[in-house]
Formats: sequence, C-alpha cells, structure tokens
Amino acid sequence: MGSTPAHGPRLGVWIIGARGSVATTVVVGAAAVAAGLAPPVGCVTELPDFRDAGLTPLGDLVFGGCDITGIPLAKRAEQLVAAGVVPADLPASLQRALAAADREIRPGVGAAAGSQAPQAAAIAGQLADFRERHGLDRVVVVNLASTAPQPDPHPAFTDLAALRAALAGPDPVLPPHALYAYAALGAGCGYVDFTPSGAMRLPALDELARSIGVPYTGNDGKTGETLVRSALAPMFAHRALRVRAWFGTNLLGGGDGATLADPSAAASKNASKARSLTELLPDPVEGQVHIDEVPALGDWKTAWDHIAFDGFLGVRMTMQFTWQGCDSALAAPLVLDLVRLLGRAMARGAVGVQPQFAFFFKDPMGAREHRLVPQYERLLAWTRTPL
Amino acid sequence: MGSTPAHGPRLGVWIIGARGSVATTVVVGAAAVAAGLAPPVGCVTELPDFRDAGLTPLGDLVFGGCDITGIPLAKRAEQLVAAGVVPADLPASLQRALAAADREIRPGVGAAAGSQAPQAAAIAGQLADFRERHGLDRVVVVNLASTAPQPDPHPAFTDLAALRAALAGPDPVLPPHALYAYAALGAGCGYVDFTPSGAMRLPALDELARSIGVPYTGNDGKTGETLVRSALAPMFAHRALRVRAWFGTNLLGGGDGATLADPSAAASKNASKARSLTELLPDPVEGQVHIDEVPALGDWKTAWDHIAFDGFLGVRMTMQFTWQGCDSALAAPLVLDLVRLLGRAMARGAVGVQPQFAFFFKDPMGAREHRLVPQYERLLAWTRTPL
Amino acid sequence: MGSTPAHGPRLGVWIIGARGSVATTVVVGAAAVAAGLAPPVGCVTELPDFRDAGLTPLGDLVFGGCDITGIPLAKRAEQLVAAGVVPADLPASLQRALAAADREIRPGVGAAAGSQAPQAAAIAGQLADFRERHGLDRVVVVNLASTAPQPDPHPAFTDLAALRAALAGPDPVLPPHALYAYAALGAGCGYVDFTPSGAMRLPALDELARSIGVPYTGNDGKTGETLVRSALAPMFAHRALRVRAWFGTNLLGGGDGATLADPSAAASKNASKARSLTELLPDPVEGQVHIDEVPALGDWKTAWDHIAFDGFLGVRMTMQFTWQGCDSALAAPLVLDLVRLLGRAMARGAVGVQPQFAFFFKDPMGAREHRLVPQYERLLAWTRTPL
Amino acid sequence: MGSTPAHGPRLGVWIIGARGSVATTVVVGAAAVAAGLAPPVGCVTELPDFRDAGLTPLGDLVFGGCDITGIPLAKRAEQLVAAGVVPADLPASLQRALAAADREIRPGVGAAAGSQAPQAAAIAGQLADFRERHGLDRVVVVNLASTAPQPDPHPAFTDLAALRAALAGPDPVLPPHALYAYAALGAGCGYVDFTPSGAMRLPALDELARSIGVPYTGNDGKTGETLVRSALAPMFAHRALRVRAWFGTNLLGGGDGATLADPSAAASKNASKARSLTELLPDPVEGQVHIDEVPALGDWKTAWDHIAFDGFLGVRMTMQFTWQGCDSALAAPLVLDLVRLLGRAMARGAVGVQPQFAFFFKDPMGAREHRLVPQYERLLAWTRTPL
Repeated sequence: MGSTPAHGPRLGVWIIGARGSVATTVVVGAAAVAAGLAPPVGCVTELPDFRDAGLTPLGDLVFGGCDITGIPLAKRAEQLVAAGVVPADLPASLQRALAAADREIRPGVGAAAGSQAPQAAAIAGQLADFRERHGLDRVVVVNLASTAPQPDPHPAFTDLAALRAALAGPDPVLPPHALYAYAALGAGCGYVDFTPSGAMRLPALDELARSIGVPYTGNDGKTGETLVRSALAPMFAHRALRVRAWFGTNLLGGGDGATLADPSAAASKNASKARSLTELLPDPVEGQVHIDEVPALGDWKTAWDHIAFDGFLGVRMTMQFTWQGCDSALAAPLVLDLVRLLGRAMARGAVGVQPQFAFFFKDPMGAREHRLVPQYERLLAWTRTPL
Repeated sequence: MGSTPAHGPRLGVWIIGARGSVATTVVVGAAAVAAGLAPPVGCVTELPDFRDAGLTPLGDLVFGGCDITGIPLAKRAEQLVAAGVVPADLPASLQRALAAADREIRPGVGAAAGSQAPQAAAIAGQLADFRERHGLDRVVVVNLASTAPQPDPHPAFTDLAALRAALAGPDPVLPPHALYAYAALGAGCGYVDFTPSGAMRLPALDELARSIGVPYTGNDGKTGETLVRSALAPMFAHRALRVRAWFGTNLLGGGDGATLADPSAAASKNASKARSLTELLPDPVEGQVHIDEVPALGDWKTAWDHIAFDGFLGVRMTMQFTWQGCDSALAAPLVLDLVRLLGRAMARGAVGVQPQFAFFFKDPMGAREHRLVPQYERLLAWTRTPL
Repeated sequence: MGSTPAHGPRLGVWIIGARGSVATTVVVGAAAVAAGLAPPVGCVTELPDFRDAGLTPLGDLVFGGCDITGIPLAKRAEQLVAAGVVPADLPASLQRALAAADREIRPGVGAAAGSQAPQAAAIAGQLADFRERHGLDRVVVVNLASTAPQPDPHPAFTDLAALRAALAGPDPVLPPHALYAYAALGAGCGYVDFTPSGAMRLPALDELARSIGVPYTGNDGKTGETLVRSALAPMFAHRALRVRAWFGTNLLGGGDGATLADPSAAASKNASKARSLTELLPDPVEGQVHIDEVPALGDWKTAWDHIAFDGFLGVRMTMQFTWQGCDSALAAPLVLDLVRLLGRAMARGAVGVQPQFAFFFKDPMGAREHRLVPQYERLLAWTRTPL
Repeated sequence: MGSTPAHGPRLGVWIIGARGSVATTVVVGAAAVAAGLAPPVGCVTELPDFRDAGLTPLGDLVFGGCDITGIPLAKRAEQLVAAGVVPADLPASLQRALAAADREIRPGVGAAAGSQAPQAAAIAGQLADFRERHGLDRVVVVNLASTAPQPDPHPAFTDLAALRAALAGPDPVLPPHALYAYAALGAGCGYVDFTPSGAMRLPALDELARSIGVPYTGNDGKTGETLVRSALAPMFAHRALRVRAWFGTNLLGGGDGATLADPSAAASKNASKARSLTELLPDPVEGQVHIDEVPALGDWKTAWDHIAFDGFLGVRMTMQFTWQGCDSALAAPLVLDLVRLLGRAMARGAVGVQPQFAFFFKDPMGAREHRLVPQYERLLAWTRTPL
C-alpha cells in the first residue's frame, strides 16, 4: 500500500455505518482484489473500459468511519463467511487489512437532545484527524447507514445561513445522517449518499457543498429490482409496447428488511423505486412495490416483478422476472466504484452534484436519465475527459 | 388513401408469405390503425420520436405479395380473431382493405426442378405489374415465409456473374426464398429479410443490391427472448457481473413451432440467437436454447431464461425471466416499421445493407451493436438526417 | 329440461350476487355443457369418478337469485366474451337459458336502517315462491356476493333464540350476507358460503341449520394460490423438508381485486389463506400474502409464491410458482359441483356442516384436513355411500 | 454405536458408488444427525409418524461399498463443504465415522472382457466379508452409481437359469450395475436401485430375488422436478382441469449433468419422468423434458416447468414453477430412509419387489400409484403393520 502511482494519490474512504454488512464486504473485498485473492467481479471501475481513467488503485484506499456498534470487523467478516457472502479463506488472509480499518472506526453519533453544533465539530475533527494521520490527498465520506425516514420539513433546510444558525441553537435540527453529511462537506470531503437518506436533497446542504467547493453524489444504490427495471423498461418504451401494470415484491433478509418493515423508512425507498419507473415509461402505469422482511433469507434478497403490457391491436402479454441476489455482494463493489470516481471528480475540481454517476443510483440526483445503458455511456465519456 | 403527403409518397409492400399469420396481422393492423380503430401500440415508427422522419403514413401503404396457399385474408383474419390475436370487431370493419390486399396476392413459387431464370423473370414481372397498376413510387419486398434451412454452399453464391450464369442453366440453384430476393432486388425493390432465411448473406445477392442500387436489411425479427436478452445482457456486462450460464427454453405454438421442430431450420434460428449473446457479453458463457413446438399454445409463445452469474467475491446469484407473448402481434408492427424505414432509405438513395436498422433484428446484418438502447439511439439519429 | 331422471330430481340454485361474473359464468356454463356446446372441463362432478353418484344433471338445474344491480345476464355474458372468459358464440346460442335465469333474479337487500325481521321474511318469501313456481324438490342458496368484512361480535350471534329476538328489534343485527343465510336456512334451503363471508361461523346460524334440518358448507372457494398450496405443502411436510418462509403476491383484476383493496375485507381473505398454511405445515413459517388490485388484468389473476426451505444438513433451497388464471372460469364449475353435491346431501337427509366438501374451500368448515388429495378421496368415498 | 436396541439390529449399508457426492453426503449426514450435530431435516423416517416403526437408528448403520475412484471420503467431504452442500464444521467433527466408512470401500468392478462369473463371486465375497467382520444382521446394497444406459436386450435376461449359464460363458452379459445387483441378491442382501439403472427390470433378477427370498425396491430417486410433478399433477386431474402441455427444463451441474448429456443415459431418465406424467394425468399431454449440463451450477440443479391447461369453457391458463435445489442434499436422506425401510422389510421376511416404497421413486417398481400423498399414506400404513 506504500507506493503512490502518478494518477492514484492516497484516497481516504470514511464510512458511516462502517461495521455493517456492506461496509465489511467493502473492506474485505478491496483488500482481496488488491491482493489478487479474488477477481474484480462486480467492480465496474475494474472493467477494461476504465483502465485509463486514472483512478486510485484499490490497494491504495484507506478505510475508516464510524458505527454505533463495536463488533470488530474480523468478527463481522466471519459472520459473512457463515452467511455465504465472503469465501471461507479470506478473513484469515486479510487480518491486517481488517485490523487497520478497525482501528479507524469511531463510535457513531445518534439522535440526541441538545445543540448539534458541537457534534458536527466533533465529526469534522475525526475526519481531519483521519486525513492527517494517513497523509491522505482526499477523503470521500460514504453513507452506508440503515435507510432513514425523510426528515420533517424545517425552515432551516432551505438556506445554509439559516441552517448554521439553527445548529448553533439549543435543539437538534438535522437527523443524524444529515448531520454527518453537513460535517463531511464542511470538512472538505466528497460525499456519497449510498443509502436513501435524502440528506443531500436539503437545499442548505447542496449550498454548503457548492460554497466549500466539494462534489457529492447519490442516492440509493441501484443493486437489484431497480437495476433490472432500468435495463428492461426502455425495451417496452422503445418498442412502443404499452405497459399497463408493473408490480414488484421484494423479500429481504438481514438488516435491510428489518429497517424497511418500518413504513416511514420504506416510504423513502419506495419513493425512489416509483420515481424510476415513472421516468422510464411514457405512460402512467398501475403498480406497487412490496417489501417484506424475511429473516430466513439471511443476506439474500429475492425480487419478483410482474409486467402486464399491451402489444399490437391491444393483445395482452406478460413478462416476469425473478432476481435472487446477495445484497452486500451487490452493493459493496459499487461503493468502491463510487469512492474512486468521486476521488477523480475531486481531483478535477468538480463541485456540487455529479450527475454523471447516475448509473449507480435508484434515484440519481441531478440527472433525469434513468436508462441503464445511456447512464453507462455517460459515465464512460466522463472518465475519458482529461484529469 | 388518395392524398399523397409531401414526405410520404405511395409505397408498395410486397410480402412473401402474404397469407400467413404475421402478414394478415400486418394488413389488418395497418388498416385498423390508419382508420383510428386501434391505437398504434407496438409500432415504433408511430412514437413521437419519429413524427418528423417523413415516413409514409400507414394508410398510404399498398399491400400485395405471394403465398403458396389460397385461403382468403378475410378468413385468415377470422382465424386470428378466434386465436385472440385480432379484436373481434375488426375484420368486418376492414373488409375493403382485406379484399384489396387479397387481390394482389399471387401464387407463390416453391421448390421445383428445371431452370430458375424463368421463375425469377416471372416474379420480377409480378412486381413490375404491382408497381405500375398502383402508381407506386417504391416497393419494398418483405420475406415473411417460414424459417428456411441455410442452403448448402454453392460456388455461384459468391459472385453475381456466376450466379446469373447458373440460374440460366438447367438446374435449380437458389432456394425459393433466395430466388425471391434475387428477383426483388433485380426489379429495383428494397428487401427486408424478416424471417431468418440468410438469403442476403450470399455475397452474390449483396453484390446484386449494390449493382442495382437498392437497400436491404435483415435478418430475423427480434420479437421475444432475444429482444429481452439484448436489453438485459448489457446490464451484466456494464455492471461487471460474470455470467456463467444463460439457458433458454422456447415454447412455440402455431406454424413457427412446427417449422422449428425441423432441426435444420432450428439450427438457422439458434445460430442467430447464440450470436447475439456472444456479442453482448465479454466472456464465454455456458448456454443452450431449446425450441419446442407446442400446438396447444396456439399463436402464443413462452420463453424462459435462466441466468447464473457471479457477483463480488464470487458469490453465486441467479436471475430468471418469463416472456409470454403473441408472436404475430409482436412481429407485425415491426414489419410496418421496417417497410416505412426502408422506404425512407430508398428515398435517400441508400444502397446495400442498412446497419441502422439493427434494432429490429436478432442477427443484424452490417452491425456489431447488439445492445437494444444504443440500437434505438442509432436508428433515431438516422431518422433525423435530412431526406 | 323437462325430464326428471331417477336420481336427479329438480334442483333450484338461488345465487346471492346473481349478476356477478362468477354467477353469469355459472349460468352460461351449465347451459353450454348441458347442450353439448362445451366440454365439462373444470367440473369435478363430471369426472368419471362421479358418474354413479346420483347427482342432478346440469341441464336440470334451475337458476335464480338476487343482485343489487339490474344489468341483464345477456349483457353480462357479452362483457365476459369481451373479457375472454366466455367463448364468443355461446351467448347467442344460450339466449333462452340466460333469459330464464334473468327472470328469476330479484333486487338484492343491502345494509339499511330498521328492523331486519321483515327483510328476512321477504327473502324467505322469494325463495318459497321460486321453489313453488318451478316445482323444485330442493333449493340450494349460494353466496357469491363480494367478499365481506367479518361482522363485529354481537351477543345475539351465539344463540338462535337471542338472534331471533334481536332481529325482531328495531335495529339491524346481521350484515346483509348473514341475513340471507338466516333466511335461506329458515326456508329449508341448503346453503353454500362460497365467498369468504364467515356467516356460517356464527353459532346461531349453525344452530338454525341443525334445528331446521338442512345442510350447509363453506367457506371461501379454493381456486388459485391456496389450491396450489394445498397440493404442494404436503410435499414439504411428508418429505421432512423444513419450510422457512412462504410468501405470496396476488394480482387481481376485476371486482374481487377492488373489494380486497379494502383492508377489512382483505383481512377476511388473508385469514383463510394463512389458516390453510398453518394446518398444512408442521412448523411455524415466516410468511405474508399481498393482494393487489390491478384493473389492467381484467378478469385474470396472477399469483406468485416464493418458498424458502431447508434440506438435509440445513442446505437452503427455494421453490417458486406462478399461477395465471381466469377467476370466474376457476370458480364457476366449483359452484356447479357444490350445488349438485349439497343437493345430494339434502336428499340423504344430511344436517348441519358438511365436512366432506372441504376439497372445494380455502377454509373448510368442520374439517381439519387441508391436503388436497385426501380431501378428494374423502369426497369420493362419500359419493359412494348409498343415497 | 455399540448398543443394539430391541427393534434396531445392526444393519449394513453397502453403496455402489460409495465415494460419490450423494454417498459422501449419506455418510456425513447419518453421522451428523446421530451425533446431534444437525437436525434430521429431509429424513422422512425421522418424522414423528415413523417413531414406532422399529427402524434401525441412524447411528447403528454400518457403511461400506465400492467405487472406481480412490479419493478418500474425508477429501470428498471437504469438496462438499466448498460446494456449499455440507456445513464447514462437520467433516472435522466426524473424522472417525468417515474413516470407518472409508476402510470398507473396495475398488469397483467396471466393464471388462471375459467371463463375469468370477467377478460376481468376488463381489459376493466382499459382501460376505463385510457382514461377518461387523456382525451385521442384514445388509442392504444401494446403487448410487451414475445413471447407466439401458442394456441391449439379451435372451439371458428373461430367465434365471439362462442368465447363470450365460455368466459362466466366456463373454460379458450384464452391464456392471446389473452384475452388482446379481451378486448382491445372490449374497442375500436387500437391494435399492436408487439411480435409474433399470437392472431390477430384468426378469431374471426379479426371479433371483424371489428364489433367494430377499426384497428389493426402485427405481430412480424422486428428488426434484418429478417430486413436484407428483404433488401437483393430481391437482389438475382431481379438479378436472385439462392439461394441454407440460414442458420441463432441467439444468444440472456436477456429475449427473455430465452423465445425462450422454443421450442414451438421458433416455433412461427421461423415460421415467415421462411415465410418471402419463400415469398422473387422464389425458395425453404434449410435453418434453430437456436436461442440460451446466457445470457452473456446481452441485445445484434448477428445474423449470411450464403447464398450459384449459379451464371451464376452454379458457386457457398457465402455471409455472421453478425448483432450485441441491442434488446431493435432496437424495442423501432418501437413501437413509430406504435402507432403514428395506431393513425393516427384510426383518419381516418380505420377498421380491416392494411397492410400498413408491413414495421415493420417479418410476416405482410394482406400483401404479404416482400421486405423492397416497404414496405417503401407503408407506405409513405399512410401517404400522407389526414387525
């Protein structure tokens, strides 16, 4: 990890929710691929298309972050072995990488009474400390915390000055995940909203990113049902087939299912799923998405979609698909892609929302293109602009 | 049908297999949509994107062709009503259009002993007669005959002069569908190889098209399993997911199933299906496609595909889809699209193979792009070039 | 319809909801099969196994009933033709049968203020009148009205004397469907609770049936997802496979979907679905059933079930099924089966709940056997007992 | 393993193909369940229903057999851990049991030139030796070798005396698996034909079993697609639904897929699959079953079945199912069930074919009942007959 290649300066990755399944898979996976112990399957930025994009090598990423639990990463990795997510031999081979990341994980800040300005300062301090001790050129903060409900509207959300004043006041203003985004941007870090927190949809935070001069992207990583929809729906639209109904059922094991059994969190997720279909199809479509928590599925998820459509002369036809995937294994490589790409955006001096990363998100900020292949082509074109 | 709009001169559509299910649906559908009796669902060239492409209005198409059976189109339309392909009230309302097309269908030429030059001349004569009596600006010939086996190699296939000499000889040289293509091109018609005959893959026919100065396109209309594959496979490729196995089963009712139960005809079809997947995915994939004839399905077809793929760190995942569609209803609007688009190509003086129509074909001639959305974008860009 | 065979005396069928899709299909279907215009597909009692059971021939059934709408059956039949449920040529051929049933349909009683005793008397009068004018030996009343929510508990529900007293009082006591059951039993009719009304679960109505000496059966016809479950679940149980999760999604078009979008009606339906799985499997199972209304599906319904189970040594496996059926066509022949069978039970002097008909119900009253094949064997054995 | 309970005398299990995936899972699983390290999921004879059947406890089974490869069972078990079939911690805990079985596996006899009488004698000698050294009351021989093609007809197959004479002659007569059956029966062992060898369909071998006085059962363990079919098909039959087409596609990884890519072996398997459907449904059905080898699936298999059926008034409906299971984990517990049950049959002095075990087989010998639940009920009734 010592050498710094020309186009790959040292990049810090600071994860909110750093002991979760996805985060653990991120740390294990980056180390395994860098060490040649696993092929870079699932990692978009390791495709030949990205060879000359000047991205930080996976082995040069430095991991840290925060979490409200204290279970060691090595133990979390063993749990992922038992769950079939991580190959049995990896944790032992990667002890050093896991221990290094473990040392850089701080206790997370939760919802609490009192003024939030000191909390924000503490987080910013952790980030500055992380950067300095490792001599990092840049730090990207990634939100991998559980899906959070949308915060209730607040006048301070629309204006940065108002937000700063409110944070200095006696009462909490921002939900925890948005406080992290506030602190991260303020500390000059890039920010990736990978879980559907909606924090970066607050105008005050966008204003902050622009005033500080840092880029951000989001939100809600596109890893399963919506990924397939963004590949399939253009087929119906471009073939002039009239989709009448598009229903989906998602069976989720693990933590994500449990979180989404809470209707207000699910609402956040469902909104981004529905938005996607509306953008992809020309006509209104009957449809609903169910999310069920199924602990028996472990880290796996199953999505089933039923599509009823009309063909020529109104003939009714149907299509269905089933997707059985491992959530952490689908999400983790995208996190690696995004931190490397946002690192490149920072190197290019990019500021504010970065729509060229829409390819990775259910509900891409700053972009209206939801079709998967054009999203890919746009991403690729951007990586070919000079650094 | 009398008025001729500025960009829509009268266009003849001469169908090989003009009494088949697809052809009947083409004639019924064009008339129904032109009369406002059915919405243009499934018709790509009726999308708003194509409004300014200067295509011949559906109501200005003049239909004719040939078939080896003599069942009247009106009766075929009734059969399609019983099969659920055509709404019950349409045939009665469209009697005039059906009768008009019926009058222009000639007995088809089959395989026979003896020299083929007179047969070719007879077909060319039918085409000239069709054009003259209707005052057509252009004629497009569409092959909708049953899937044919690839012809055995013959030295005359590679060179136009040799082919002409061979046709003048005492023995048959070309299979019937290729003889039609030869006659059509020679008569100055555009040619669409919608069924996978492979005729236009004979270098002598390509030479003929270029020497006469007419455009052609093909082959094998992309209406079901391969359509979905061309939308889905890029998702795996662009997300760096490693597809290990992709198997398909096709249950086909009606005539197509029966034809494809003949292994040599099926080979032709399977070859185009397999080619598509190879082009779409970066790595070799285990896979096979089964085609079963299932008369009980009537005009419907069901495809089931099973995809086994590896995600991050080698985790095994699966995806499956089921497609239940009506074959004639899927194919017919594409035929209308293609004749209108090839008519436009003729108006622009296009010559030889037309790769911009790859969007419509399982095995597009002249194009290596198999991804559906880029195919659509290319088609659209072409329609925006001036006439 | 005039002759009365030895074991088939004239049987009246009085349908609550007599103008609904299922009821219309019942009347059309009985007439079509009796006239030899359609094969008896879907009709269990037309299987060879039932040849000697002494059931009333389909042509000897006399239909009547009530409905809150007044649309003529002939028009309803035309709507079912358009929906693809009834073959296009049948309604014209069966005009006489449709008109005959139409004349016997009375306006239905809905929820209203005031004492219910007069309403009950009026219904009983209609039934007596129907029986007399047609010289019927027996009348079976079938509830095909929309799924109703369970009534709130009421002290009068547990005791017949208390119920009679309450009905004579000034306020409504019973929901409409239960009032019909009360009147039907009181008038000496057999009663089939085909929609999940739960009326016959009121102890006072069971007491009434027993005191009058009439048989009844129910409830909730088993036509789709639960039918498949009752065939499949024993496979897991008898093979000692441990089902961990069994989730289902139901997409329903037409009226049933709309009704079940009302959570309290859906609760009634879901309760019977869940009860079935609990009886069929030895261990508790994670699971939920979603019901979505999808008007685009018309009279069709699609069920998708996902089953996660453990095999030997805890290996995780999955099974899924999709069921795409036409609701009215699935329900109607079972209604014909049940009225014929309940007619036979009446002929044998059977009284109270009839558990031998569990084969037809999601939530069979009086029976704990939910496995489909043993239910069939029990039914068959009963039909072999002497009349 | 020392104590011998009243109804469970020591039972030897001698496996043909003793180092295969199924056999290894049998040995691991019996030991794991006996030691309380795994629950008896998938083991029918461990259900409460079988508690009083007097079966040999799993821990009292003594394993041996033959195989043409020499890879130690411990290594095979590790391979099954890597394949996800066996939990990671089991092989180490069960070293003793694996080593004990390993010591009792002899080199297998393959196809060779020359007389087969000495080979048969050698096998019989191995079996006698196995029985004596372990003081076994009874030995059951189980065929778990790869699916074999049906032998070509031979006059010696129909008569035991002729077979004995032919075996004494200079040329091979029986295929290897049938030679094992011959030797096993001759040595007084019970015989289970778990792979579809068809050996016991040779009349001479049936005669041998009867003359020696030993029971046998088979063939072709029902573990996936056919298992589901035998649960589902009665639903269509008993509900009078007319199945028009029933097609299946099987994707098999591992050894079984490779074997079945050989058309003559596949023919043997397909015949038993087809026979099952014919017995289960009253009318002829269009249908075919494809078997594909998909090494990427490892030890897993996926079956997809598509069923097109007619409902009332001829309305067309469809059902589909997908089954994703682990082959060895599905087969192994059935092997344990069968040896215990055949041991019980031997204790009762049963002779010849044992139709009460039809529950376990695709193509049950001696029984025409293919419906799963009645097969279970018959098995259960038999276990309640006194020993």
